[in-house]
Amino acid sequence: MITVNEKLENSVIFPIGEVFVSENFIGTVHLHMLTGFDNGVPIGNVTFEPGCRNSWHSHPGGQILLVTGGRGWYQEWGQDAKELHAGDVVSIPKNAKHWHGAARDSWFVHLAVEANASAGPAQWLEPVSDEEYNKLP
Amino acid sequence: MITVNEKLENSVIFPIGEVFVSENFIGTVHLHMLTGFDNGVPIGNVTFEPGCRNSWHSHPGGQILLVTGGRGWYQEWGQDAKELHAGDVVSIPKNAKHWHGAARDSWFVHLAVEANASAGPAQWLEPVSDEEYNKLP
Repeated sequence: MITVNEKLENSVIFPIGEVFVSENFIGTVHLHMLTGFDNGVPIGNVTFEPGCRNSWHSHPGGQILLVTGGRGWYQEWGQDAKELHAGDVVSIPKNAKHWHGAARDSWFVHLAVEANASAGPAQWLEPVSDEEYNKLP
Repeated sequence: MITVNEKLENSVIFPIGEVFVSENFIGTVHLHMLTGFDNGVPIGNVTFEPGCRNSWHSHPGGQILLVTGGRGWYQEWGQDAKELHAGDVVSIPKNAKHWHGAARDSWFVHLAVEANASAGPAQWLEPVSDEEYNKLP
């Protein structure tokens, strides 16, 4: 059995923050904002517990994921899911429909950098179903 | 004696990259760009060897430092230097004159996020003299 915090204490550099309650996530996610919106680049430290993922969504200004720990997934609509590990970087194009989250058996931590924040907030779409998600290793 | 790479292998998440040769640094610095300029948010992984620091400078669009390892310093003109460790975040205001770098006896690693990149490149000024720098613990 995975003890999430036991794993995290060796790998999470930035504060884990509070549990983030949102209808746009399945499972438990923690969020700590590292910067505010005032400097033009909101950056959050996002920690997904095993099995947690967000719904399909898009960002009008794009987003950058900087993976700092664990094992997880990023998928763009119409493409195969890509497995992610510490040190991986994903540049998500403007308006690209996608989701990201942990593997079933692993926590997953990334910094989320909002690009061109003035373009507006994320557009949230349908969840990633258990049927889709459970096909991933 | 500090073996830089021995320490780094346990702490650096993103690639160390190549030695970055610049007249705006004293000592040895490594740079690996994690994103390009095309997404509007250039992000570099910057690794300072012990004693390495950059010259006083400013960013017309501001900059964010996300510290991932080691011990180092950030100083704004007219203020005391602030000691930095893994997990610290510095939001550098637009046009604020400042420098950053490693402690004398430690490597230091941070992500450097360029805010509002379209505002233009950094403005480089005078070096941080040995006299100033060596006062720091």
